[in-house]
Amino acid sequence: MRDLKGHPELCAINTATLGFTTPIAQVIDAIARHGFGGIAPWRREIEGHDVAAIARRIRDAKLEVTGYCRSTFIPAATTAELRSNIEANKRAIEDAATLGAKSFVMVVGGLAAGSRDIIAARAQVAEATAELLDHGIEHGVKIALEPLHPVYAADRSCLSTIDETLDLCDRLDGGKSDALGVCLDVYHIWWDPYLARAIQRARGRITGFHVCDWLLKTRDALNDRGMMGDGVIDIPAIRAMIEGAGYQGLVEVEIFSAADWWTRPIDETLRVCRERLAGCC
Amino acid sequence: MRDLKGHPELCAINTATLGFTTPIAQVIDAIARHGFGGIAPWRREIEGHDVAAIARRIRDAKLEVTGYCRSTFIPAATTAELRSNIEANKRAIEDAATLGAKSFVMVVGGLAAGSRDIIAARAQVAEATAELLDHGIEHGVKIALEPLHPVYAADRSCLSTIDETLDLCDRLDGGKSDALGVCLDVYHIWWDPYLARAIQRARGRITGFHVCDWLLKTRDALNDRGMMGDGVIDIPAIRAMIEGAGYQGLVEVEIFSAADWWTRPIDETLRVCRERLAGCC
Repeated sequence: MRDLKGHPELCAINTATLGFTTPIAQVIDAIARHGFGGIAPWRREIEGHDVAAIARRIRDAKLEVTGYCRSTFIPAATTAELRSNIEANKRAIEDAATLGAKSFVMVVGGLAAGSRDIIAARAQVAEATAELLDHGIEHGVKIALEPLHPVYAADRSCLSTIDETLDLCDRLDGGKSDALGVCLDVYHIWWDPYLARAIQRARGRITGFHVCDWLLKTRDALNDRGMMGDGVIDIPAIRAMIEGAGYQGLVEVEIFSAADWWTRPIDETLRVCRERLAGCC
Repeated sequence: MRDLKGHPELCAINTATLGFTTPIAQVIDAIARHGFGGIAPWRREIEGHDVAAIARRIRDAKLEVTGYCRSTFIPAATTAELRSNIEANKRAIEDAATLGAKSFVMVVGGLAAGSRDIIAARAQVAEATAELLDHGIEHGVKIALEPLHPVYAADRSCLSTIDETLDLCDRLDGGKSDALGVCLDVYHIWWDPYLARAIQRARGRITGFHVCDWLLKTRDALNDRGMMGDGVIDIPAIRAMIEGAGYQGLVEVEIFSAADWWTRPIDETLRVCRERLAGCC
């Protein structure tokens, strides 16, 4: 396993960690100044702005774009809405290409509005991902499916486990074209009873690796994630599995923390991220 | 699939649904008065009381005891604490025998205090369950392992999926002695991508079936569960799978709802349970 101590260049910051309080240009500069090797920006920071100029600024800062976050949720109550969701994602994939992103991160969405049919939601996700995969190939952008913790199955992701996500990958891209992969976040996968086996199975598909922590007293399922070391996830054990399965990309910090880290100055958050990557990951 | 409409006798009430606001004797009478066929009491209502007298009152009310809730959490930081947890469960199993309970429901616990080692927690659970299984056989009480939603993996249950629970059952009771089973709650299993397959695999092991609902806007992971019909779970589809796998026991309502159902008069909650069992399950 790689030694992260003294090697922030092996690590990346997902801008969600900084709470979207600071303009993207300053965020890019701060992440680079703290020595990190990569950034994962969000569409809210990119869309409606000069994407090429932002891409240039990231390149000039010598940051890799690990992933572009994230897809519009897919499942929809009507065909028109489903089409609209797919088209929005196509445009985002084009922006990902402009940014030179290593991947377009897909958080696929939960149930369609008013629906109780999770099987139908998964079918829409499969259909849409097939189309977006073609679009990604056309634009040179890898699609990264991110399974989310089952606590989000209703409202954010009907893809809940690594195995399920790999089954979908195999179905859509049996030849492992390198155009479709999975993004693995310790927060979403740590509880999996068959984690080691699932990560081994993901060999050759792992396009991103996210860290944060599960707080024992989680106050809010979405926005109360912890800084690495403050929770109960054995992050080094999981990183060993991920790197043992061949992953050599950056280790990316993504922390949703409305009541804690998002309230702090971004320089403090970045400093602590660097320390904890070195000591707790 | 059985028709629950007009058949509350096919249904049971887990007393947690009523918020523990009313003495157990009145709870027994109310559940029987509303026509239900069974009750699942909690240890807090039983321990320190005259267990034989409560058992008699339940029998006189012609209620089946579907399950006795629930195990002391197993995982422990010390051997002494682990022993203490196991012994507490043995005493509870003896009370379950006095109550004539169909099963002793095991919610196994999450990580030991201060631990990040979920694999160690699972090992302690396996070891303890083997011992408790023997104790159950000795006292004529079936052990029902209940996998809990992965949102509880840290603090309430390191058993998260049906498959994992069945793997443990097969390991401890490969001959399917009928002394070890699983208790399936729609709240904990609805998101499972391989649900139909897992339930089929559980044939012959299903010793309990719980219903409630997953609210789209869940405010609290533990105590904001919904009344059947108020959330996003396709309960009839899951009941069809469960009964298709041979389950013919009672359909038990278990709702943790601090801010809503627990604040209502128990007669109102019982009336609505009966309506929703008939219409939404």
